[in-house]
Amino acid sequence: MSKIKNPIRIGIVGYGNLGKGVEKALDQNPDMRLTAIFTRRDPESLSKDGKMMHYSTIKDFVGKIDVMILCGGSATDLPKQVPEIAQWFHTVDSYDNHAKIPEYFDQVNQVAQTNKTLSLISTGWDPGLFSLARVLGQSILPEGKDYTFWGRGVSQGHSDAVRRVDGVKNAVQYTIPLDSALEKVREGEQPDLSAADRHERICYVVPEEGADISEIETAIKTMPHYFEPYRTTVHFITEEELLTEHSSMPHGGIVFRTGRTGEKSRQRIEFNLALEDNPEFTSSVLVAYARAVFRMAAQGASGACTIFDVPPGYLSPKSAEELRKSIL
Amino acid sequence: MSKIKNPIRIGIVGYGNLGKGVEKALDQNPDMRLTAIFTRRDPESLSKDGKMMHYSTIKDFVGKIDVMILCGGSATDLPKQVPEIAQWFHTVDSYDNHAKIPEYFDQVNQVAQTNKTLSLISTGWDPGLFSLARVLGQSILPEGKDYTFWGRGVSQGHSDAVRRVDGVKNAVQYTIPLDSALEKVREGEQPDLSAADRHERICYVVPEEGADISEIETAIKTMPHYFEPYRTTVHFITEEELLTEHSSMPHGGIVFRTGRTGEKSRQRIEFNLALEDNPEFTSSVLVAYARAVFRMAAQGASGACTIFDVPPGYLSPKSAEELRKSIL
Repeated sequence: MSKIKNPIRIGIVGYGNLGKGVEKALDQNPDMRLTAIFTRRDPESLSKDGKMMHYSTIKDFVGKIDVMILCGGSATDLPKQVPEIAQWFHTVDSYDNHAKIPEYFDQVNQVAQTNKTLSLISTGWDPGLFSLARVLGQSILPEGKDYTFWGRGVSQGHSDAVRRVDGVKNAVQYTIPLDSALEKVREGEQPDLSAADRHERICYVVPEEGADISEIETAIKTMPHYFEPYRTTVHFITEEELLTEHSSMPHGGIVFRTGRTGEKSRQRIEFNLALEDNPEFTSSVLVAYARAVFRMAAQGASGACTIFDVPPGYLSPKSAEELRKSIL
Repeated sequence: MSKIKNPIRIGIVGYGNLGKGVEKALDQNPDMRLTAIFTRRDPESLSKDGKMMHYSTIKDFVGKIDVMILCGGSATDLPKQVPEIAQWFHTVDSYDNHAKIPEYFDQVNQVAQTNKTLSLISTGWDPGLFSLARVLGQSILPEGKDYTFWGRGVSQGHSDAVRRVDGVKNAVQYTIPLDSALEKVREGEQPDLSAADRHERICYVVPEEGADISEIETAIKTMPHYFEPYRTTVHFITEEELLTEHSSMPHGGIVFRTGRTGEKSRQRIEFNLALEDNPEFTSSVLVAYARAVFRMAAQGASGACTIFDVPPGYLSPKSAEELRKSIL
């Protein structure tokens, strides 16, 4: 796709699934350009038209990159990298450790305020678009109830948990919303539903040769928190089947707000994502929010912010005038 | 519900379905208080604990009302009232004449900028939340397609058109999304679908005594634009049935964005509203956006704006810190 003049110059930090997704998403946005990808691996071995740089050179790009999109993991990469990079660049990240967000926000905010940069944290789809759906729902229907369903999709955390079971060679776990629960919520009955009441779990497991299959199944189904409270099904398959049938990364989910207005009128807001490629979609969200960060920073915003602080029009390459005319 | 100290003081202009809905919605929001309702009818005849005021007294409320919620119609009320009231108050309205929005925006913007007030125009659900869903979808999935479905719901315009047919005493028209079209869109096939390909229309008609029923049916089904291109069904019922079965005002609809990322991954964003009471829901949206207008104005914003300019966190009574902790 041909690029416009003076595109927004983007840097990618980290070149796993998410970083690769950002690279592809930038190709779909003519007003943005990939300037460099930063990695802690040997950049020579990754080629990429000379755009692959070692992480240690990042400071040399001050003045050459407008927004850095951070694509590392939430466990160790982002808490270390974002406060460092926010000294020099505006940033966007998908930090998803919900419990630690307040602490992470404060840490990033301090650096970004000091250095007059703007850092949008924790965007993507959850946290991110789902958070936006929750704030809309709660604000518009104050007397109501939220429900978040995840799936149908692959949960990395649960797949990892199955892989750690003795006798398991490889495994993929799908989280799937229960139709019966979806139906109750859509009816507006406002039931109390735990995560286990809302989802079932299906595991595709490749056993080690000679492993006791029924022991594996029991070990999975009785695993506390992860599987014990859930309706869980375990299928044993071959490594080949796993690779051909279960190597994609679908995900998605639904955020509901069901509430009442006036005397008794039932009102329902539903935000539903069906994603064939989870990391690519998250990357696409990061890229749209990088555009917003560029614009907000150009208007003088600095410090840390979240999806709640971003005027939605800033996500679009269209001007405010075009948006009012064509989309409103 | 008990109110907090120093609530946001709201005025309602116009006391039809929408104004009554705003009054009810304010009861659900402890941080907001109804100060007065302005009407062009005789306020004495409407009572309301002394809160009903004649429209001509509105200027006396400068300093006593923070945000005026305009609840008149788009055809004549809002284009006249908003530019007048924006001289003295921040305003929120649901102006929905899509084609004239740019002109209306400019007109309101000029008054609001001159008087340092803030006017949020054209919010509700379409325009409003559906516009927000469209800008999110287009920005995140630039290579994709939008679909808007309306219904299942009562269309006032189409009901009025049926009522104008000779021999029709009363009528209600429902717009209903076609399941076959929904299915194609959800599959990600990105079909080209006209409004008539996406919806069917069902009419419940009370004929005048002695009217020719088959003539009525033909007149409806062949009505250009309104019904001719659509799959239309006409049911004849009694006035009593109409009142008992078809007097509520349900509506809703779905905004889809289906797109591709990377090589070929299909991604789908769906925003779905199912409303038992259309005006009450629109009113609830207006009230949440009145809160946002109050906050944006407190931060110095003035002029006209739209849903695209509003940071979503401003809709919530919760602080930014609480939102990050509890919803993000």
